[in-house]
Formats: sequence, C-alpha cells, structure tokens
Amino acid sequence: MINTISREYICENITRDETGELCFAGLPLSPLARTYGTPLYLYDEDRIRERCRTYREAMQKAFGDGGRVLYASKAASFRRLYEIMREEDLGVDVVSCGEICTANAAGFPLENAYFHSNNKTDADIVYAMEHGVGYFVVDNEEELYAIDRIGGERGIRQKVLLRLTPGIDPHTYAAVATGKVDSKFGSAIETGQAEAITDVALSLANVNLCGFHCHVGSQVFEADVFLRTANVMLTFVAHIYQTRGYLATQLDIGGGIGVRYTKEQPTPDIAACIAEIGAYIKERAHELSLPLPTILLEPGRSLVADAGLTLYTVGTVKHIPGYKTYVSVDGGMTDNPRFALYGAPYTILPVAAEAGDGATPCSVVGRCCESGDILQENVPLPPMRRGDLLACLTTGAYHYSMASNYNRIPRPPVVMIKNKTAQLVIRRETVEDLLHLEV
Amino acid sequence: MINTISREYICENITRDETGELCFAGLPLSPLARTYGTPLYLYDEDRIRERCRTYREAMQKAFGDGGRVLYASKAASFRRLYEIMREEDLGVDVVSCGEICTANAAGFPLENAYFHSNNKTDADIVYAMEHGVGYFVVDNEEELYAIDRIGGERGIRQKVLLRLTPGIDPHTYAAVATGKVDSKFGSAIETGQAEAITDVALSLANVNLCGFHCHVGSQVFEADVFLRTANVMLTFVAHIYQTRGYLATQLDIGGGIGVRYTKEQPTPDIAACIAEIGAYIKERAHELSLPLPTILLEPGRSLVADAGLTLYTVGTVKHIPGYKTYVSVDGGMTDNPRFALYGAPYTILPVAAEAGDGATPCSVVGRCCESGDILQENVPLPPMRRGDLLACLTTGAYHYSMASNYNRIPRPPVVMIKNKTAQLVIRRETVEDLLHLEV
Repeated sequence: MINTISREYICENITRDETGELCFAGLPLSPLARTYGTPLYLYDEDRIRERCRTYREAMQKAFGDGGRVLYASKAASFRRLYEIMREEDLGVDVVSCGEICTANAAGFPLENAYFHSNNKTDADIVYAMEHGVGYFVVDNEEELYAIDRIGGERGIRQKVLLRLTPGIDPHTYAAVATGKVDSKFGSAIETGQAEAITDVALSLANVNLCGFHCHVGSQVFEADVFLRTANVMLTFVAHIYQTRGYLATQLDIGGGIGVRYTKEQPTPDIAACIAEIGAYIKERAHELSLPLPTILLEPGRSLVADAGLTLYTVGTVKHIPGYKTYVSVDGGMTDNPRFALYGAPYTILPVAAEAGDGATPCSVVGRCCESGDILQENVPLPPMRRGDLLACLTTGAYHYSMASNYNRIPRPPVVMIKNKTAQLVIRRETVEDLLHLEV
Repeated sequence: MINTISREYICENITRDETGELCFAGLPLSPLARTYGTPLYLYDEDRIRERCRTYREAMQKAFGDGGRVLYASKAASFRRLYEIMREEDLGVDVVSCGEICTANAAGFPLENAYFHSNNKTDADIVYAMEHGVGYFVVDNEEELYAIDRIGGERGIRQKVLLRLTPGIDPHTYAAVATGKVDSKFGSAIETGQAEAITDVALSLANVNLCGFHCHVGSQVFEADVFLRTANVMLTFVAHIYQTRGYLATQLDIGGGIGVRYTKEQPTPDIAACIAEIGAYIKERAHELSLPLPTILLEPGRSLVADAGLTLYTVGTVKHIPGYKTYVSVDGGMTDNPRFALYGAPYTILPVAAEAGDGATPCSVVGRCCESGDILQENVPLPPMRRGDLLACLTTGAYHYSMASNYNRIPRPPVVMIKNKTAQLVIRRETVEDLLHLEV
C-alpha cells in the first residue's frame, strides 16, 4: 500500500465555515450556485498547481533532470488546463486531434506533447505532425508504418515511444486495466510482439525511436504495482540494449496512482510513492548495468480529480415507504456517467450543514429518464428539500470530459477558483446550442 | 412471448448487393463512407415512417380514435425526427427543455407533446408552459404543487397525467426497468402514494388531471408484461372512478416493446402485440364497467432503433497469440456507450462481404484510451485490414442521443436516407467546435 496522509475530509480543499456551510477552495458554495446556477463544475486551480509541483519536485528529487511529468489530459481537457500545465512546466499526454487542437489553442508547446491512442488514423497522424506534436506513443506496427510513410512524405523523422503491455494486472476495474497482455493497447512483451515492433521501429528511416511506454491501469493504491511494472520494463530495455545495442533514452511507466473518492479510501502520499519508485528504478538499472533513461510519469486523475467538485440543486425528494428515499438532483449521468459505467464510489455532502445524527441513507439520482441514472447509493443525508444544494466531491477527472447531452440536457459550465476568486472558463451550454450542428 | 416475424437479416433494410457489399435502406455503404466519412450515423427514414404507420394503424384498429401513439424522443432527438413525427401525425414524449426546444425548432405542434422527467425544475416548468406543451406527465407531488403555482401565475390550467409505478418487474436490465415500486419514477400504487397524489391533483385549481401514465421498462419481449401492466392500471382507474367519481380520459401504458439487436433475439410483431393488448384492455375495462379512456402508447427505441446503422472504418488489427484478435474502429464508446454501460448486444457486419467460413471471433473495440471502450465481443469477422468498413446494426436509438466528446472526440454526422437518397441532417462536429463553449 502506498503510504497515506490522513485527512479530516476527503481533501483539504473541502472545509465548512463558521455557519456550517460547505466551502471549496476557500469559497462557500451557495453564492457560487447563485452566481453560476447548477449543475456546476468547480475547479480548484491552486490545488491543481500544488499537485503538479508535488509530482515535479518528487521527480526532480528522484531523478534530477532525468525525470519528466506528463499530464494525461483525457482526465479533463479544456484550454485553461493546458495553460496551467504550460505554466507549471509539465508535458502533456494527448489522445486525439481534439486534445491536440485544445492544447494548441492554449498556447501549449506541442513539442512537449505525447500523442497516444490505440487507433490513430492517417488523418490523425497528419494532423499531429502538422501541429508539431513532439512524440507519438505508438501502439502497433501498422501505426509505425503509417508514421514512417507520412513522415517520409513530409521530411519528418518522427520521435516515438513504443507502447508495450508488461503483463501486470493492477487489480482495478476491468474497464480501466490496461497493462494486461489481453488488451487492446500496445504490444505484449510476453508474446514477443514487443521485441518485434522494436525491430520494426529501428528499421524505419523516418522513425526516431526514443524509448518505451506502458500504463497498467488506474486507481492503483499499491506502490508494488509500479515497482513490478518498472522491473518488467527495465528488464526489457536492458534486453534490447544487450541484444540490439539500442539504448532507450526515455522510459514512461504511465500513471494511475489512486485518488481518494471516499473516506474509506486512502490518500496516497505522491512524494513518498515517487521516492520509492525512484529508488527502486535506480537500483534495478544499476543491477542491470543499464544507463538510466529519462523516466516519465503520466498522472491524469491524480493531478485534477480532487481539484474538482460538482454542485447540484435538489429537486424531487421521494420517500417510498418500505423501500428507500430518492433525492433527485438537476444533473446526473449526463455530467457524471461514472456510477452508471463502473459503479464508481463518491462522497456527496449537503452544502448547508453536516448530515449529523438525523441522517438517513438516500439514493442520489439524476434527472435523466433512465433508472440507471444514479449518482450514488446509500448517501447519508439530513432531510432534504427542493432547492437545497448537494456537492459531489472529487469530480475533477472524467466528468466534464465524459459529459453527454443525453436526454438533450445541456452541459454544465466550468468555473475555476484561484486564490479565492472564481472565474468562468466554460460557459453553460444552452438548449439552442444543442441545435448548432443541425443543417 | 410476443409473436415474431422471421427475417433473414436483423431487419429487412439490411441487404447485400450482387457484389456482396452490405446495403442499408437500399444504398451500398462504401460510397456513403466516401462521401460523408466515418464514423457515420445513418438513418432509414422510410423505415421510421413505416414503423410509425404500423403503430398508428394497429392502434386505430384496436381503439378507433381512442388510441394515440407518442414517440419517446429521448431515443433519438434531433430536428428531422420531430418533423417526421409531425408529418406522421404522432405525438411526442419529451423529457427536457432541450427536447422541447428541438421539437419546437422542427415546427412540431407542442400541444401534442407530453413532458416527462422525474425532476422538473421550476425553470423547466416555466419553459414548457411558455412553449405551450400540451401535457405534463407529473412524477410527484412537489412537481404538482409547482405546476399549480406557476400555472396560477400565468393563468394556465395545465393538463397533466400522473406517472404511477404499477409494481411490474419487466425482467429487463436494471438500468432500464422503471415500473417497479422501488424506482425514482412516479408514485407507487402499492404504497398508497398513487391514490394520495391523485387526490392532490384533483384538489388543485390550476391542474387539469387528464389521466394516468406508467412505463415498466425497455426491451420487453413478453406481451404478458403489457397485459399485467394494463390490468394494474385499469384496476386503479376503476378504483379512482368508484371512490372519487373521477374518470380518467387518458391512460398511457408506456412503451418498451423489444427491438432485435442480434439474430438470437426475436422480431416482435408490433401489430399483433397491439391487437393483443387492445383486446385485453377492452375486455378488462368491460369487466370493470369502466368507460374506456384514450389509450396511449409511447414507443421510442421500437420506432427508430433498426432504422439506424453506424458505419466505421477499421484501423488497428491486433492478434494477440493465445488470447484474441482486437479490431479497432474509428469510433467507440463516444458514439455508442451501450456496451460499456449495459454490455448491450449488437450485430456487427463487414461491409465488403459476408464473414463466411474463414471468420474468427474478434473483439471490436473503439479508439478511446479506455479498456472498457468495446463495441462488441466475439464478432465473427473475416480477416480485416486498416481501411476496411464495418457496420454496426440497430443503432437508431440511444446512440446519437447518448454520444459524448470523451477523449475530445468530435461526434459523427447524421445522414438520413429517404427513397434511396441520402441527406446530411447533422454535420460532423469538428475539433474546433469542441472549443465553442470556452470563454
């Protein structure tokens, strides 16, 4: 288990003021609801920056200039976040032309971007090269040939990492476990396909192989998973060095350090975890007589999840005698599909005051015409009424980015809080906006 | 089991031409892919109209002028569909201001719209009244009081149906089972809450109670479910008539007739099913000495699902020795989240030719950076190559309407085919469009 830091709340940016009202990033929530309406996505910019620095400084301590942190931006991708990453001197991992376009619009230096995806089309490859994306994280041989061909047409010798599957089962949700051999991602070391694709990469004129990448999964709370992953990858790098004379200059061991969604989950100590990984990697490289490549980490959720909170207004409260109490809010699976997809746990708190002793377990449900539109079951709540506010914590990752217009419901706005000042960064979608693609 | 009609393919709008190429609505698919790109949502307008007429004529036959069909538009909500429903003389069920706005933009007569939702905000109620929505399907007492208050302020005596939960378990996915007592929807008959809300509705000056509504679930293949539902509802209507002297003029027994996604599933015979329901309702009303109310049906999926098809281009094909073959397409859970959400079954066919004897079972996966981004497992496919086309059938319901921009992937366009002529009705979203709400 990764060492943990104890917290009274889920995260230290959650507090209550003297009246008992819930505050986020130092601001009471009800004035924000009045100003911007609900549902409302809030981000704590100071928290994001603090997390970026924790990662960067821990990597600096572990590897000196030989460490690099990339923000896995699929967790939350909008312009302001890429601006923050640029200012915090992080690289980014992008997974689509949409993310490249958004990073570019933010003035993010794309030479520090790593382009992922198990299925890059020729059009994607062209787009990324034309925008000067620094690195492609190549999933498979077909992609490699396409990069070589398209790079050749443009006079580009494209820098790439190869995505490998190290055969590590991170014991997380199946939907987010990506490092197993039986995966749509990457080339498996176990089957010999990793070696084969390395040989192809080394043979292609317009491909500049810089190293290897892997990512074993998300919501990992066992540091051991990262050590085992690093071991498999370093052993592979050493094997390639010994047998081909090719020395990787970059090794990306992915992201996935867990995030605390409920009190029952630990708060990973990022710095301690990275120190442990760093010590292990240096020792293992030494044992393998391997010159240490630059080590890359790719946190996504871990940088932004607890920097997010979603604010809802309660509508219908329905007590079904002999069954349970349903508390409906003005959002749901459209702004947070993660319970519907994975049964993901969340902490939901009343804004006005602590639940206290009079709390009863409620199903907090959304406003979609679908029974599966549930935000969380068994949420202890005081008696709720139409118009009361509820806060769902830890919604900074995979919420805005996964939002839909199901039931023709417009997406909520995003408000960023910095030094106790709120700023709208994405406006609320309107019902008229929903028609803007119709011809 | 609902009587079924046998079909060689899933639906008769799926054929192969003399070259073996897959056709939809009479058109070969590869020229459509060339013209509009992929992924691409296609709709067969003739099929939608045929289904509308099947429903309308069966209801006419069963109930004369005392039957009405509403399209449950959350299945697929965009302007062109409301235009078709207007032309086919169907009513619509809408679940949000977004759907009301879209129906209105299509010139749909909103006096024939029924406004659902378990959680209508005051703003929703005002919006619907201002747009002249004919009926509110009221979920709960709080909503009823809000309608009475807001109606009073506007001099409107709002027509309503009350949504009841009849306590029928339709044996479908939990996520789409809505008629059980333990549900976020409606007022349960079993607990006495249905009677209580009826009394409230009858007591309010600005509420014009027109009758009752229920919906027990989706993908129902047992006609018996509808008969049992009708029995519970008619018994309730008769009870209210006897005890309060109030005679409901409308009874909406919902939708939910199943749709064939795979060959293993039956093709329900809609006309026969409605005839069976009609005969039962008339007999039961007679037994209860109940003047027959207007009977409403609310098909959604059943009207549009097999009028839709999604076309994809294959990218990465990855055979993992000892495990399986992954075929990645250029869409995925962003345009079809239903496998990720429910493990929903689909039929996926190669466009070029039948799979034939050389077929091997493949995992057809999407392009998102998420292991759960799967369209279907164990799809028998011939050897596939980058650039080949695949068609996912029966995607007319809950696809475009559930689409997201996860991974910052733009949403596909919608092309409607009428009398073998294709017309773009929703253009492809661009990566620049994704920034349009950012301030």
